[in-house]
Amino acid sequence: MLSNQLHNGLETAKLLWSRIPNSEDGEVDGGSLLRNSNRNTVESLDYEVIENYAYREEQAQRGKLYVGYYVAVKWFLALLTGIGTGLAAVFINISVENFAGWKFALTFSIIQRSYFAGFVIYVLINLILVFSSVYIVTHFAPAAAGSGIPEIKGYLNGLDIHGILLFRTLIGKIFGSIGSVGGGLALGKEGPLVHTGACIASLLGQGGSSKYHLSLRWLQVFKSDRDRRDLVTCGCAAGVAAAFRAPVGGVLFALEEVTSWWRSQLMWRVFFTSAIVAVVVRTAMGWCKSGKCGHFGSGGFIIWDTSDGQEDYSFEELLPMAVIGVIGGLLGALFNQLTFHITYWRRNYLHKKGNRVKIIEACLISVITSAISFGLPLLRKCNPCPESDHDSGIECPRPPGMYGNYVNFYCGKDKEYNDLATIFFNTQDDAIRNLFSAKTIHEFSAQSLLTFLVMFYTLAVVTFGTAVPAGQFVPGIMIGSTYGRLVGMFVVNFYKKLNVEEGTYALLGAASFLGGSMRMTVSLCVIMVEITNNLKLLPLIMLVLLISKAVGDAFNEGFYEQQARLKGIALLESRPKYQMRNMMAKEACRNQKVVSFPRIVKVADAVSILQSNLHNGFPVIDHVRNGETLVIGLVLRSHLLVLLQSKVDFQHSPLPCDPAGVSKSISEFVKPVSSKGISIEDIHLSSDDLEMYIDLAPVLNPSPYVVPEDMSLTKVYNLFRQLGLRHIFVVPRASRVVGMITREDLLIEDSEDSASVELHSTSVRGHRQYSMISRNVDVERPLLNGLLLQDHMLG
Amino acid sequence: MLSNQLHNGLETAKLLWSRIPNSEDGEVDGGSLLRNSNRNTVESLDYEVIENYAYREEQAQRGKLYVGYYVAVKWFLALLTGIGTGLAAVFINISVENFAGWKFALTFSIIQRSYFAGFVIYVLINLILVFSSVYIVTHFAPAAAGSGIPEIKGYLNGLDIHGILLFRTLIGKIFGSIGSVGGGLALGKEGPLVHTGACIASLLGQGGSSKYHLSLRWLQVFKSDRDRRDLVTCGCAAGVAAAFRAPVGGVLFALEEVTSWWRSQLMWRVFFTSAIVAVVVRTAMGWCKSGKCGHFGSGGFIIWDTSDGQEDYSFEELLPMAVIGVIGGLLGALFNQLTFHITYWRRNYLHKKGNRVKIIEACLISVITSAISFGLPLLRKCNPCPESDHDSGIECPRPPGMYGNYVNFYCGKDKEYNDLATIFFNTQDDAIRNLFSAKTIHEFSAQSLLTFLVMFYTLAVVTFGTAVPAGQFVPGIMIGSTYGRLVGMFVVNFYKKLNVEEGTYALLGAASFLGGSMRMTVSLCVIMVEITNNLKLLPLIMLVLLISKAVGDAFNEGFYEQQARLKGIALLESRPKYQMRNMMAKEACRNQKVVSFPRIVKVADAVSILQSNLHNGFPVIDHVRNGETLVIGLVLRSHLLVLLQSKVDFQHSPLPCDPAGVSKSISEFVKPVSSKGISIEDIHLSSDDLEMYIDLAPVLNPSPYVVPEDMSLTKVYNLFRQLGLRHIFVVPRASRVVGMITREDLLIEDSEDSASVELHSTSVRGHRQYSMISRNVDVERPLLNGLLLQDHMLG
Repeated sequence: MLSNQLHNGLETAKLLWSRIPNSEDGEVDGGSLLRNSNRNTVESLDYEVIENYAYREEQAQRGKLYVGYYVAVKWFLALLTGIGTGLAAVFINISVENFAGWKFALTFSIIQRSYFAGFVIYVLINLILVFSSVYIVTHFAPAAAGSGIPEIKGYLNGLDIHGILLFRTLIGKIFGSIGSVGGGLALGKEGPLVHTGACIASLLGQGGSSKYHLSLRWLQVFKSDRDRRDLVTCGCAAGVAAAFRAPVGGVLFALEEVTSWWRSQLMWRVFFTSAIVAVVVRTAMGWCKSGKCGHFGSGGFIIWDTSDGQEDYSFEELLPMAVIGVIGGLLGALFNQLTFHITYWRRNYLHKKGNRVKIIEACLISVITSAISFGLPLLRKCNPCPESDHDSGIECPRPPGMYGNYVNFYCGKDKEYNDLATIFFNTQDDAIRNLFSAKTIHEFSAQSLLTFLVMFYTLAVVTFGTAVPAGQFVPGIMIGSTYGRLVGMFVVNFYKKLNVEEGTYALLGAASFLGGSMRMTVSLCVIMVEITNNLKLLPLIMLVLLISKAVGDAFNEGFYEQQARLKGIALLESRPKYQMRNMMAKEACRNQKVVSFPRIVKVADAVSILQSNLHNGFPVIDHVRNGETLVIGLVLRSHLLVLLQSKVDFQHSPLPCDPAGVSKSISEFVKPVSSKGISIEDIHLSSDDLEMYIDLAPVLNPSPYVVPEDMSLTKVYNLFRQLGLRHIFVVPRASRVVGMITREDLLIEDSEDSASVELHSTSVRGHRQYSMISRNVDVERPLLNGLLLQDHMLG
Repeated sequence: MLSNQLHNGLETAKLLWSRIPNSEDGEVDGGSLLRNSNRNTVESLDYEVIENYAYREEQAQRGKLYVGYYVAVKWFLALLTGIGTGLAAVFINISVENFAGWKFALTFSIIQRSYFAGFVIYVLINLILVFSSVYIVTHFAPAAAGSGIPEIKGYLNGLDIHGILLFRTLIGKIFGSIGSVGGGLALGKEGPLVHTGACIASLLGQGGSSKYHLSLRWLQVFKSDRDRRDLVTCGCAAGVAAAFRAPVGGVLFALEEVTSWWRSQLMWRVFFTSAIVAVVVRTAMGWCKSGKCGHFGSGGFIIWDTSDGQEDYSFEELLPMAVIGVIGGLLGALFNQLTFHITYWRRNYLHKKGNRVKIIEACLISVITSAISFGLPLLRKCNPCPESDHDSGIECPRPPGMYGNYVNFYCGKDKEYNDLATIFFNTQDDAIRNLFSAKTIHEFSAQSLLTFLVMFYTLAVVTFGTAVPAGQFVPGIMIGSTYGRLVGMFVVNFYKKLNVEEGTYALLGAASFLGGSMRMTVSLCVIMVEITNNLKLLPLIMLVLLISKAVGDAFNEGFYEQQARLKGIALLESRPKYQMRNMMAKEACRNQKVVSFPRIVKVADAVSILQSNLHNGFPVIDHVRNGETLVIGLVLRSHLLVLLQSKVDFQHSPLPCDPAGVSKSISEFVKPVSSKGISIEDIHLSSDDLEMYIDLAPVLNPSPYVVPEDMSLTKVYNLFRQLGLRHIFVVPRASRVVGMITREDLLIEDSEDSASVELHSTSVRGHRQYSMISRNVDVERPLLNGLLLQDHMLG
């Protein structure tokens, strides 16, 4: 009986492990930040969960129906993520546009009488908006500061960064963005929107936020971390799609920049989410067209349509375009370097002094930004309007209170405009639209553009890193399009061609700066094409991106990588490091003493092991006949803590437990992303408890991946990275080969005719039982169980 | 000395294995077709290559410079692939357009006098073109028949399908496509273009075709199969980009449909290739605009601009759009099923009768197609031209010899047109343009569209599988847009709305049929958007694709999967099969007896092992102290064959060899993709040779991946599939754990300051030696060598 119980226990574990939907192939590292350089971080991004007998039976009965339900919920959550992110984006945009529109309208109406009063009002409004933003962030949602993309990258790379996916972070991000962007700071709302999408997805994936009593039980089907991670990936794509109205760009951004583990099954769902966002945003904009949303609509949502851009280009133009690429690479790399140092200084000195300093800093920057954007245009002389061109439909000066080119600001005459005010004293979206605009040759003077470039570049460098939500896309586009337009002006003057459009050069400049700073490639290309709605420029955008990325790479890492490093987010790159080629698996873990558990462990021992070291996983080693040992699996600290906390599975005898009595339900081992998990200090056990035993068999992972001790570390790295593992056992070389698995061994066909009905991979696929293997195969599995069985019969 | 030699030998192997550029993490399965159900197929898609000492030293000296050169060659080859594929596409298009244009011009001029003579000429021209195509394919390049996409999928999945990437296949594909498409068959040139791109890439990757003396030595830097495979992926993307002028669609197609192993580093290169294609094609078209290319230019290269399509849609329209999706799913699934059965019948009965039958079959189909496309419009009554609308710029009837709507064919009056001839008696590109055209409400009668749908569907089903290059995109678009337009006509009549465009419905129909047949998702969406140059339709296209794919999946597999199965191309899917959950690693290889080699093997033994079984890899097991054994690595059949054939490494004594004497250069172990490799029957050894010995240490892979025997097969599958392996050793459970590797152990930083210069991943990255580990670490590696050393000291 005894041996049978043991047997069953291990079988339970093995079967349970193989049953978790879609989570077969491994754990995902729920890693640890570098700043916690010990192994103290709570690992929670795992789906090393177990199921009890009841759950398993229920599961088996429901079978196909349950899988169908599961797939349906996945798609439903993707739909909700899309709708949620779309609505959030619409809300942010409407708010920003209305605040900014109202601000400029008020200022323009006041400066009719007094420029000083207008200046004061302008500064004050901006200050209030920025203050509200920084106050929300510092006092309510500290994780909402900054772009959020490095953190999401870290999360999807397998790190558990506490706080980034909370409900309060979502709220902080949304309202913080409105304040900081509406307040005219030199930052954008696009990065924060990606974070917003990820937060929405994560909250949906865990069925709501339990802290704010918003949780829905029927949504809590995602037991595995992979499902949640997939949904967060959808959320990122939705964020980009919403920020730029670029669904394809969103998918590619999620694919190229954010995720670490991509599966092609996921792609369709991500794309679906993006498309939903596009529909939501389009519907909202259609609804707003009739003027129901105040200022929103005429400016607003990014689409800088450049379909008027030049149709064709000559080969001579490739040289100035290459020059734009080089400038982009240089300025982008410089931008990364400057922000890196300033952020470093902020993190380590300034922001340690507390929230008050953060608030003062942001407000100071707001006042400076306001002063510059109001003051500098005052110093410019106005230019007379160009002769009216009715075809282009561009009025000069633009009608008061409207968006458009040719801003009349501090001009003597009616038919004049201030070119610096056109880009500086304007919303960012509008400024970009003006810079991109075709058929406005000679609108801007080189002097104004240079002034703007220097001032805005400086402001963008200084602003990034303050305690407000801050994206880098729009500032990057502004900086890039300014020097792009400068080059374009030069080309127009030099080549004397009529078909050259400065706006097209501005667009290329924007692409080059983003490429030089963020080092994105395909996704950036597609985003640029989508936001300008002009497929024809694709090869040119590619050219400048190739150059600017190569130039930038010669100096430093990409923007997000640098910021991630600053924040202690250590990303496992997709490639192994070069020096790993000369290392062996054993060398990688040489400083580490392996602490192992026996199968049946005394509670006191378990507690002392957990207290005395900080490992997150432990091998379980059992004795078999002749006193030999056998590695029977891996047990996770988090699971041990759940067992210790619940106390239900404690037993008096040091003998294997009855598997039918395993009481844990799978959901008890799943921790919501937004919680910190249990710590060993939280667990208080009586002395009676400490004398009891736990059988680890039901909770262990019976077959973690193993590597021989002298395997090249590059190979180990690839195994670890590709499969998203958290633990690999390094074991001695084997003495014999039991079998060899080749391609053919894995080509197991479904037992049905090839021509018969089969459902495809995104839906349910071939869930028939493999006819030759009955479910209850214990008798045919003599391996581990047999060994253990003999041991206990002998012992 | 002896032990030292052994020691060195194994070190050599280990170091060599860890040095192959970019090929660290594993072998890629150079698999076997199912029809060769034994293990007889030549495995060549591997980069299990070794390097000799000289090579390694040279490599170490060249170091960074070499890596730079290597990266540069990679990009250069991508550039060449792009240019080559672009030029091939231009050539095919110009030829097809000119043949077709000339054909229709001649026919139209003749039917002014006699319809019968025109019919005869029309049939004859088509017959000649189709005959030339089928003749080229059957007598010169049999692998050029069909679409080629299933074969390329198989190749990139790890199968070595002989003949698909030969130079002659390339030639056959190009000229065969011209004949079959120009000859008016119901097939397209897009699939073949993908194959063409892959062929060009593969030939470039192996430095040309040695058979035709076109090889370039300096291009032969790609020693590893992964590099070649990457280049073929670029070629596929280039093919799609060239076929549809859709660079982003090409990248996504390669990503979603074709490749099995995708790395984000590859993405940028693939995108680069696609963009090059776009530039080449655009340049060529610009050059042709002035009329230098005959008929080409006005029709030609796919861009069915639907920017005139409807701008907005109401929610009521979603229902008919969903109906289109359902129809697409049903007709697509039916199409797959019919082609599957007909192709099955062809392969197993008709085409076994030889080339003559194939030729007769294709010619017969050509005559039938010609007769139907000429004859059916004759039966239609002509319609009077609609009132001229000068804004739309559409003339009725179109001027003779031009492309356009409203074909005047067999009409009594001048101001009449034949709606069936407009789609049927026309080039396919033109027919699609007419179906997609906006502002041509009521151009087609429902009767004509229905007739066309039925006839063309039948023709497409019958034509696919004949021995000519045949793509399914364009026929799919034709079929889909026909019923789409039918639905659109219904909507126009039913909803009585003015902003509904039948052309938009035709586009959605095309998307739905392709989705229902090929089951592509994201890439198809993007391709449809790119070829219609209308980003606004994206959400609608997605909607119909979602529906049609779901409906199609309810009936059968995708088109390419079915065709691949028919051809015996067994693809390893990205997901493990459901029944693997209940299997263990050991069960997968239960029918297989493991044959292992000793480290130093007698030549006669090696030959007899290779003759007596067909395995492609063998474990190498050595005896260590106490007679215990130790698995020291994996040796490949192909490498053994190279050793046996060259005879250079034979030695007289059964003692370990001197590693400095290993004479093989890495390139000797690399087989060009287009060759069949060595067979054991080709090797003739004298009896003296048979008495000699080989030391396998320098050629073995010292650390293949291992799994414990009772690991879940799902986990094994994921390991195998994700890392692209060919062999996994199934070993007994370990008795102890030497160490544990976690995320932190793998976060090895470069020893440089974070702010210092670092090149990015697409270029050279951090090639400094890891400071703590010297290159010559033999003394610190007691593991395997120590054991072996002791053994030989004792023995």
